[in-house]
Amino acid sequence: MDFPFIQTAVEAVRTQTPLVHCITNYVTVNDCANALIAAGASPIMSDEPADVEDITSICGGLVLNIGTLNQRSIEGMHRAGNRAAELGHAIVLDPVGAGASALRTQTASDLLDELPVRVVRGNMSEIKALAGSAASTRGVDVNPDDVVTDANLVASGRAAQALAAKTGAVIAITGAIDVVADAQRAFAIRNGSPLLGKITGSGCMLSCLVAAYATALPDDALEAAVSAVASMGWAGEVAAARMQPLDGNGSFRTYLLDALYNLTGTELREHARVEPIDLGEGR
Amino acid sequence: MDFPFIQTAVEAVRTQTPLVHCITNYVTVNDCANALIAAGASPIMSDEPADVEDITSICGGLVLNIGTLNQRSIEGMHRAGNRAAELGHAIVLDPVGAGASALRTQTASDLLDELPVRVVRGNMSEIKALAGSAASTRGVDVNPDDVVTDANLVASGRAAQALAAKTGAVIAITGAIDVVADAQRAFAIRNGSPLLGKITGSGCMLSCLVAAYATALPDDALEAAVSAVASMGWAGEVAAARMQPLDGNGSFRTYLLDALYNLTGTELREHARVEPIDLGEGR
Amino acid sequence: MDFPFIQTAVEAVRTQTPLVHCITNYVTVNDCANALIAAGASPIMSDEPADVEDITSICGGLVLNIGTLNQRSIEGMHRAGNRAAELGHAIVLDPVGAGASALRTQTASDLLDELPVRVVRGNMSEIKALAGSAASTRGVDVNPDDVVTDANLVASGRAAQALAAKTGAVIAITGAIDVVADAQRAFAIRNGSPLLGKITGSGCMLSCLVAAYATALPDDALEAAVSAVASMGWAGEVAAARMQPLDGNGSFRTYLLDALYNLTGTELREHARVEPIDLGEGR
Repeated sequence: MDFPFIQTAVEAVRTQTPLVHCITNYVTVNDCANALIAAGASPIMSDEPADVEDITSICGGLVLNIGTLNQRSIEGMHRAGNRAAELGHAIVLDPVGAGASALRTQTASDLLDELPVRVVRGNMSEIKALAGSAASTRGVDVNPDDVVTDANLVASGRAAQALAAKTGAVIAITGAIDVVADAQRAFAIRNGSPLLGKITGSGCMLSCLVAAYATALPDDALEAAVSAVASMGWAGEVAAARMQPLDGNGSFRTYLLDALYNLTGTELREHARVEPIDLGEGR
Repeated sequence: MDFPFIQTAVEAVRTQTPLVHCITNYVTVNDCANALIAAGASPIMSDEPADVEDITSICGGLVLNIGTLNQRSIEGMHRAGNRAAELGHAIVLDPVGAGASALRTQTASDLLDELPVRVVRGNMSEIKALAGSAASTRGVDVNPDDVVTDANLVASGRAAQALAAKTGAVIAITGAIDVVADAQRAFAIRNGSPLLGKITGSGCMLSCLVAAYATALPDDALEAAVSAVASMGWAGEVAAARMQPLDGNGSFRTYLLDALYNLTGTELREHARVEPIDLGEGR
Repeated sequence: MDFPFIQTAVEAVRTQTPLVHCITNYVTVNDCANALIAAGASPIMSDEPADVEDITSICGGLVLNIGTLNQRSIEGMHRAGNRAAELGHAIVLDPVGAGASALRTQTASDLLDELPVRVVRGNMSEIKALAGSAASTRGVDVNPDDVVTDANLVASGRAAQALAAKTGAVIAITGAIDVVADAQRAFAIRNGSPLLGKITGSGCMLSCLVAAYATALPDDALEAAVSAVASMGWAGEVAAARMQPLDGNGSFRTYLLDALYNLTGTELREHARVEPIDLGEGR
């Protein structure tokens, strides 16, 4: 199907250069910054509680990523989040490892309860943990039992929609098939490459891109999230197509940033494999 | 013009392998370490107040970069800075985001007041914020109104010189045209590539290189800073020349480190586009 | 010589996908994560004391790397280490910069005293500092006086063995020639490339790989460490062989991850240059 909003979204980020404040983990932060620049946005990182309110005030979007959280950065997330909420900024929550520790599950839940989060981006295990299910996250990876497949696609869409209805946030569940839903609509995105799971940071980068897209498209967080998810998936395909026999995840990481850098709106509109999910009459 | 000191500087770093203690942000720290190694120097990172005095004591230079500053690292910067000052080490200040938050502006100003900073390296918005002007930093990027051009080159040189005279530090303002000045002399450097602005960390890496150069050339911080600025600019040109159609900022980042790694003194002396700025009679 | 255990070790990591909890420095953490994924393992980073016990509980191995240590992460290391010890996990200590500061030497010694560390991986200066010798670490690099050579290979093996006997840990000393020993046996590994010293993080990545291997081979930490050390050395050779004239340490870093990613058990068994060290009758 053809969704013109995808082209609009890509081009809006490149035209507007949204500033995105990232409170994110130190593992993948460099890739997050370069991915934002590649997409046409501008990153700023700050997690010190005494610094974050000023920094977030000059931005348009905020990413709260709880990988490598600590007591200081948790306080920073709350302070930045509240300031961003006052200013109507697009807030994206990435609940890295929710379900893997009590602190992570609690922190993600607290942030989601307290703040008007516009998009939550995680794998199915993390989303289940946030939804209060008895999730069993395998570290920062999805539990194999939680993988989204064609067989459970409608159920996955319903799970996303239920959490969206409860929280008011768009829910983006990424994996082999991605599911993005708000309380009314749900989409599946079938772009991507298994190589995205062979580098660290593809999820973190995507959460930052979602924030850039949601900042540039303030009136439709669902379309923003769908477009950002498709952009990462398609960039993964472009990067995978460049792989040579001696290449591995080092080269793939480079190619992925390159693909995000060269991505155009018409290209993504043409190659995005986005479809609505019919959640059935009972909804 | 031909400046033999540029060749001397490149070769001095490669010969001496200066140890540089970096208290720097976690966004670009890996690139900073690899850039220092590429140039022939050796990096050490430490920000814990109880660790920094020992670490800086075995080094020759110190970089204080306030990106992702926090209360602990601020204390670490002061303690390391005072120890480095006692030992006569080359201290370089990178006021990342000064003007974007009160904490950053204050921290950078405090460090500059307290320590015998040898070189300050920032964009024009950050330097204006340090100089007490009503700067309006766009996050960690320069405000478009502050870009150095041929039209404002003399005024930019004077601004750098005024801050140099006030603080005793060499002031290096980097952008499309770079301006480096002490209280007596000012230079413009016209090397570089717009791609340097399409990766995170080109400024942070440069500040570390400035520290390596200033450590290897203890008697002339101005020549050290000019040489380091030219090295990053020329490396950017070499990297840009390698770009292929599918390449983006991922590949550019790799090529930039490669270019720094292969840089020789004779090469930089030949390709550096350095010129004195005539600041006029009134000075 | 042919050591079938090397093939077994490589394949065990790829088959088991061990989860490795890393408390490591923010300089090289991204490379550590990608190196673990490249080898077939799965990384999790967490240093907050309130988070580390939960995180380490779902893992099989733990890396304690004291580069960029701070008071919070030191507490995190002790708490994670004690929990990992209760669970019988493979604990690897990387004493980055031991000998360069009192805090680093003390922290590494404390961890080694308190915890049932399975493998210590460092350069000779760091190992000497841990052994209580009057070591003089050159920052995070080995002191030139401490380089392992053919001339001092037996003495180096004895030094490793003595520390192994005292602590119960396998001691892996890496450099131009690598030495790995427990209280009974010692091996030299002659794989590698000088380019491994031209990027930051080759040591940190190796420590993480040692943890992955030791987790996958819980019954023989010596064979695990020898195999992991050989894997990094051989990957360095493969990466070095890909270097083109314009390439530098940026490209080498990418090629190294690629080589780890594509490494197979039969390949490493064929190319590993491992030999027992005869420590003589007096032992």
